[in-house]
Amino acid sequence: MIAPPMSERTLAQRLLEGDRRALARAISLVEDDRPEGWELVKLIYPHTGKAAVVGFTGPPGVGKSTLIGAVTKARREAGRSVGVLSIDPSSPFTQGALLGDRIRLSEHFLDQGVFIRSMANRGALGGLSEAALQAALLLDAAGREEVFVETVGVGQAEIDIIDHADTVVLVLMPGSGDSIQALKAGVMEIPDVIVINKADHPLTDTMVREIRGVLSLAGAEPAPAGAPERWSVPIVKTEASRGEGVAELVQRLSEHRAHISAAGQLAERRRRNLRSEVLAIATARMRRRLEEELHEDDDFQKLLEEVVERRLDPASAAAALLERES
Amino acid sequence: MIAPPMSERTLAQRLLEGDRRALARAISLVEDDRPEGWELVKLIYPHTGKAAVVGFTGPPGVGKSTLIGAVTKARREAGRSVGVLSIDPSSPFTQGALLGDRIRLSEHFLDQGVFIRSMANRGALGGLSEAALQAALLLDAAGREEVFVETVGVGQAEIDIIDHADTVVLVLMPGSGDSIQALKAGVMEIPDVIVINKADHPLTDTMVREIRGVLSLAGAEPAPAGAPERWSVPIVKTEASRGEGVAELVQRLSEHRAHISAAGQLAERRRRNLRSEVLAIATARMRRRLEEELHEDDDFQKLLEEVVERRLDPASAAAALLERES
Repeated sequence: MIAPPMSERTLAQRLLEGDRRALARAISLVEDDRPEGWELVKLIYPHTGKAAVVGFTGPPGVGKSTLIGAVTKARREAGRSVGVLSIDPSSPFTQGALLGDRIRLSEHFLDQGVFIRSMANRGALGGLSEAALQAALLLDAAGREEVFVETVGVGQAEIDIIDHADTVVLVLMPGSGDSIQALKAGVMEIPDVIVINKADHPLTDTMVREIRGVLSLAGAEPAPAGAPERWSVPIVKTEASRGEGVAELVQRLSEHRAHISAAGQLAERRRRNLRSEVLAIATARMRRRLEEELHEDDDFQKLLEEVVERRLDPASAAAALLERES
Repeated sequence: MIAPPMSERTLAQRLLEGDRRALARAISLVEDDRPEGWELVKLIYPHTGKAAVVGFTGPPGVGKSTLIGAVTKARREAGRSVGVLSIDPSSPFTQGALLGDRIRLSEHFLDQGVFIRSMANRGALGGLSEAALQAALLLDAAGREEVFVETVGVGQAEIDIIDHADTVVLVLMPGSGDSIQALKAGVMEIPDVIVINKADHPLTDTMVREIRGVLSLAGAEPAPAGAPERWSVPIVKTEASRGEGVAELVQRLSEHRAHISAAGQLAERRRRNLRSEVLAIATARMRRRLEEELHEDDDFQKLLEEVVERRLDPASAAAALLERES
């Protein structure tokens, strides 16, 4: 059955009442970059800002989805409603796979208190992160008290999306040498919470020590007098598939939230995130507009030909393009 | 002694003659985003396109710099001139450190046939990659036959800069589990050559098998009839600090170059790279212009305040900004 068309106002109303189908449709509109989607976000935006947004990042294969499944279960048991947004192309959520050890995620699909959505469209440059941020706002407005965002991250750039979370969790497993090196070298920023999943591995404790070393180096400078107390990044060992360590992780997430709220950092963090969100959307739109204009544009092809033949340098070609735009 | 000012034309002339000081000064101008730098690139651009540009990427700590040092030595012995550009903030080149096991890099600093330059400025968004690409053109114009670009890469985004190379080398070491997972999951693109450095580790052969598995999956589809023969990605085991395997790597680099030249892919690759370079420069400039205009802009502060207070959504704020611009 095809649902009848709904005005944005009706859709917004239903979404604010927590209607799952309205939420699903709203996210699709945003994902497809439809004007109605943007209109909708505009309508519901005043009702956002209540959800606790937690970003989970880390290399593929460390078990982020299973961990999110376990944390979701714990939050559900505490009576909280949950929204999960996966923007990791390697995630079982994204692949829609529900086989083998992934079956345990499926229990949540039947729970009305859990809304799971994956976004894998890697189409437009910057388009995915833009859409993901809007989708997180929609989940928030639909009354999801906890919003979990999953991204694959093994470098700094991948963390950009997740940087808009209130709490950033880096998930590793024994053998995540590259990520630890990236943390050590300052290539990757220090997250709020570090999880070592699959902690039934003999090298887990070695890894914990190594991470502690990195953290103590990174946090070496004492906080200035009068400054709010510094958050000490906890390292939590989990075996998500067996539920081990999940209670502790949930506890640490709550503590982090309490910490940033008390220290006034939540408001500051959100202000900074919103500022960069506005700029990111503006830049993405400028780039898209440029790309669209250049598609099958004869002048651009000629310009490019001159660059390829080394008669015109790339920067001058870029300047010529911008000149033409303004 | 402070060198007297030099016109761009004189500087360009000296650079094209291979003058090291002119080259150093030219790169500084580009790095500092000075108009003279851009003017210079414009002047020398018709003389570029001759160098073989090889990008080395991989997680921090795998020994990329030592490997580049060893390949440089081999190329020098074959009488080729070399330029090295390091844009890895965790690299010993970048840190200017020449102690301990890094001492072997220093021999090249005294060789007139080798020009080493690091760029670590992470300032402007997109600014570093822009500057790095210009610097590579300067090295090329100055007659460096081999240009090696070092970037730290543990994800896709980090590879963007190196994507402008003719040949991309991914350097790993036993324990680089995250990178292999990222390759396997399709999060990271398949490079042209894979090096396993520090190959005196007992787990090296296990790792080679694992990578072969990933590669055979990625290259499973047969080439269409009449298509140029597909490049088969070699896996080279090295111990760069002892020079082991370096001759084989150099051989593979030459083979890759011969392959893409014969298959007509070099021209195609360069065309694609130049197109994205023009767009990247245009986008970076648009973003910078926007950032500059917004810095201390009262209207933007008011707009942002409305977003923070949830009265105006981020996309509408972005649209308002763009509206004002045009």
